[in-house]
Amino acid sequence: MYFPSWLSQLYRGLSRPIRRTTQPIWGSLYRSLLQSSQRRIPEFSSFVVRTNTCGELRSSHLGQEVTLCGWIQYRRQNTFLVLRDFDGLVQVIIPQDESAASVKKILCEAPVESVVQVSGTVISRPAGQENPKMPTGEIEIKVKTAELLNACKKLPFEIKNFVKKTEALRLQYRYLDLRSFQMQYNLRLRSQMVMKMREYLCNLHGFVDIETPTLFKRTPGGAKEFLVPSREPGKFYSLPQSPQQFKQLLMVGGLDRYFQVARCYRDEGSRPDRQPEFTQIDIEMSFVDQTGIQSLIEGLLQYSWPNDKDPVVVPFPTMTFAEVLATYGTDKPDTRFGMKIIDISDVFRNTEIGFLQDALSKPHGTVKAICIPEGAKYLKRKDIESIRNFAADHFNQCSLLGKLRLECADLLETRGVVLRDPTLFSFLWVVDFPLFLPKEENPRELESAHHPFTAPHPSDIHLLYTEPKKARSQHYDLVLNGNEIGGGSIRIHNAELQRYILATLLKEDVKMLSHLLQALDYGAPPHGGIALGKQLFLL
Amino acid sequence: MYFPSWLSQLYRGLSRPIRRTTQPIWGSLYRSLLQSSQRRIPEFSSFVVRTNTCGELRSSHLGQEVTLCGWIQYRRQNTFLVLRDFDGLVQVIIPQDESAASVKKILCEAPVESVVQVSGTVISRPAGQENPKMPTGEIEIKVKTAELLNACKKLPFEIKNFVKKTEALRLQYRYLDLRSFQMQYNLRLRSQMVMKMREYLCNLHGFVDIETPTLFKRTPGGAKEFLVPSREPGKFYSLPQSPQQFKQLLMVGGLDRYFQVARCYRDEGSRPDRQPEFTQIDIEMSFVDQTGIQSLIEGLLQYSWPNDKDPVVVPFPTMTFAEVLATYGTDKPDTRFGMKIIDISDVFRNTEIGFLQDALSKPHGTVKAICIPEGAKYLKRKDIESIRNFAADHFNQCSLLGKLRLECADLLETRGVVLRDPTLFSFLWVVDFPLFLPKEENPRELESAHHPFTAPHPSDIHLLYTEPKKARSQHYDLVLNGNEIGGGSIRIHNAELQRYILATLLKEDVKMLSHLLQALDYGAPPHGGIALGKQLFLL
Repeated sequence: MYFPSWLSQLYRGLSRPIRRTTQPIWGSLYRSLLQSSQRRIPEFSSFVVRTNTCGELRSSHLGQEVTLCGWIQYRRQNTFLVLRDFDGLVQVIIPQDESAASVKKILCEAPVESVVQVSGTVISRPAGQENPKMPTGEIEIKVKTAELLNACKKLPFEIKNFVKKTEALRLQYRYLDLRSFQMQYNLRLRSQMVMKMREYLCNLHGFVDIETPTLFKRTPGGAKEFLVPSREPGKFYSLPQSPQQFKQLLMVGGLDRYFQVARCYRDEGSRPDRQPEFTQIDIEMSFVDQTGIQSLIEGLLQYSWPNDKDPVVVPFPTMTFAEVLATYGTDKPDTRFGMKIIDISDVFRNTEIGFLQDALSKPHGTVKAICIPEGAKYLKRKDIESIRNFAADHFNQCSLLGKLRLECADLLETRGVVLRDPTLFSFLWVVDFPLFLPKEENPRELESAHHPFTAPHPSDIHLLYTEPKKARSQHYDLVLNGNEIGGGSIRIHNAELQRYILATLLKEDVKMLSHLLQALDYGAPPHGGIALGKQLFLL
Repeated sequence: MYFPSWLSQLYRGLSRPIRRTTQPIWGSLYRSLLQSSQRRIPEFSSFVVRTNTCGELRSSHLGQEVTLCGWIQYRRQNTFLVLRDFDGLVQVIIPQDESAASVKKILCEAPVESVVQVSGTVISRPAGQENPKMPTGEIEIKVKTAELLNACKKLPFEIKNFVKKTEALRLQYRYLDLRSFQMQYNLRLRSQMVMKMREYLCNLHGFVDIETPTLFKRTPGGAKEFLVPSREPGKFYSLPQSPQQFKQLLMVGGLDRYFQVARCYRDEGSRPDRQPEFTQIDIEMSFVDQTGIQSLIEGLLQYSWPNDKDPVVVPFPTMTFAEVLATYGTDKPDTRFGMKIIDISDVFRNTEIGFLQDALSKPHGTVKAICIPEGAKYLKRKDIESIRNFAADHFNQCSLLGKLRLECADLLETRGVVLRDPTLFSFLWVVDFPLFLPKEENPRELESAHHPFTAPHPSDIHLLYTEPKKARSQHYDLVLNGNEIGGGSIRIHNAELQRYILATLLKEDVKMLSHLLQALDYGAPPHGGIALGKQLFLL
């Protein structure tokens, strides 16, 4: 029960408007997810004893004999109770006449959260007692028979207030947490969205869903892989960080279009935004260029986007790595708000202020600024102080201005300014990354900025033989509201070029990758791909 | 790139008729998989440079300017070549005029299996040169431009005869093996079939696709689990054999209908029919009984069955465990053919043959027979001898008659009798398994026949307290042509019953499962499920 970061992003966006309502509107929001002109509502009551779900009953069902199964949400004065299933809530009238004493006993004695099955008739609520806030608020159930399917012991806390409990308690009683409207909605949203992605890829565009092994051999440089001892002493499997090698081999195998909702593993220890196992939508195509992959992904997100959200507008804007760094001070900018970094060196060209003069006299020296809208109105003296301290703490880090921008945004939002609208989804392609970075341990040597299979930018191939540091790659990142939610590249399909980069530029032992090099020699098509939802591993 | 056993079953069924044709009919069979009244053919050429696939071109495309990408399958006398992609083959005419010398050079010099891109016009083949065996046999491509995308080095063998190569060579050059018609078909069939299963479960019947973790803690009795060392010394994750506990907790969490195409792990060493990791279609439902699950699965297979096969007939026949043992001598009988085991004790009630008298005089002593149709005609003296030896080797094993039946079928088939039609799919439900078996180490103690969460048969609950050995379970197996391709059960949802079975009958340490027992106490609905494609682990 976990989510890739880009989906939790979506959930976060959703959580605010939902919590604003005093009572969650069970069922109706979920149904709006499913409804659209082309899709029909699934048969939720096939193969089981119930005739209907609690949440689907409306005036159109009046007079129908129904059988319902669900949990007792609450009960009032032994006269009625509210029954809940995944689809919503319905009011059930407890019979008061002598002949139904056994039914009354069951329904009055079962503790809250017990599971019951009731049969009865859908009737109108008495005039004036309709509940317009409840999707089933026009009707109620006149019960004839009832069965206690499972009694619930006294819970360690009230379910109603469960969301206010600590994270640890929610995790300990995860199955109770899952009964909440929000968790039900999240899991169903994820399922629906991934299903639509599959339809788009498989049914509309001919992708083949192929499962690749997870018990694999170690990848060179795969420092963060989990190891699994095998039955042969001293031999280990490794759980791969992604199906990268497999999917490239599938392209060499002529599969043409591959996708997989792939489980990946990364042994990095726990951090709030990382998990040891996670899922990515893994895609690879033959005969494609960067534009092709970008259009594919824009179409994919447009097609699979929840019906209850504003539609996704395509194409997404594109910025180069150099541009985003200059404008936002990060390669994954939150573009929901402005406060861009502006070069104001010219303003201070003839300044007499000492530290600015110093800065501008250095090679490539610049003076940059962020304009905080109505900053003077909202930011107090201590805010300015904290910004100054933040800057001092991060002095000489090139990402300082990007962090300052977010820090200022945080400050403004604590003052009630809505800068980052949680209902807004601001996508951005970042392209033209450098192909190599200086190695941390030894800055004279090179390492791949992403991975060694990334193809160089077509205009920069000559630089590989002269100034490889300056070569740009055909890597692209998809950024959403300040998070990297996807990344991919056009891959090297030429064995000679791959050998040159591995052996000469990266000084890797090519023997470890001889199987891949050989595959490129035997008729590898040009190919490229992307992974959505992957965790960040650059920077 | 591996398949659950029930799908390889399907592939085996397919492989014979395909191999009978002298040349595989590229493309047409795959397209027939996709075509049906409700489904449209995917756009295979979206987002890429090609305008069409090689295999889709027909007379209806005459005169169209097309761009194709593919592999050079073969070339004849520098006049034409056959270009191949995943969708099929097309004939390309190599231009002979001076002005196209560079195009001719590219197309004549590129080695076989090189990757090329060609642009040109779809034209009719000259009268009399059409190839009716080739789906694109009415047309050819008059090329205007060509580009060599990647040259292929000399292959270690001819691709054409690849299927005759050893398994080891095929695995070493898996990416070349994958270019074969059969492998492309298999992978696409699997993808299509799983996609249709998802549509059935998710879109038609409201199941929620939920991913459960694979880095989990050890299960009691999970002796065959892979261990994964964590970052804390002495602490390990385990890779679970199935999501059994997770899916039951999801039902307690009110998810109502769960499914997952779940990766499972079993550390059993290598055997021909086992793999350390495999996939199962994992399903769980609330408020369901055995009949409900059976109908669901029958509908699932009917809906997802390949269009090019005879439709699945439902409902599937059902036999009890006792019946299949008596009739077929196994709990996973191949019901494509008869040769049932018949009790002929009465015939010999007054016999004077000593060893038969002996047998019948024992308690429960019986004499049983298998009638081999036309056995006298097909089986030679040495066959009878080998059957006799087989029987002697397996003497006193209760599964002897079942094995003998298959042994005789093998013998008859080597003589040319078609007993097990590879195009026939004979499904069977086996029900009413025993709930417990005597422990191998200590036959006075009990162990679960399947797993300890299996509910007892409603008619046998009283036996749990008197003669638990005689209690039947609500476990069901789905058998196809002699293979167990699925198994599941209605689960115990009552905490008291679960505690009694675990602690009193199975003598397990209930502390290890206290989280599950507690969950059952907090409003667990009645629930049950099934896993399709799982590996066998009973008997």
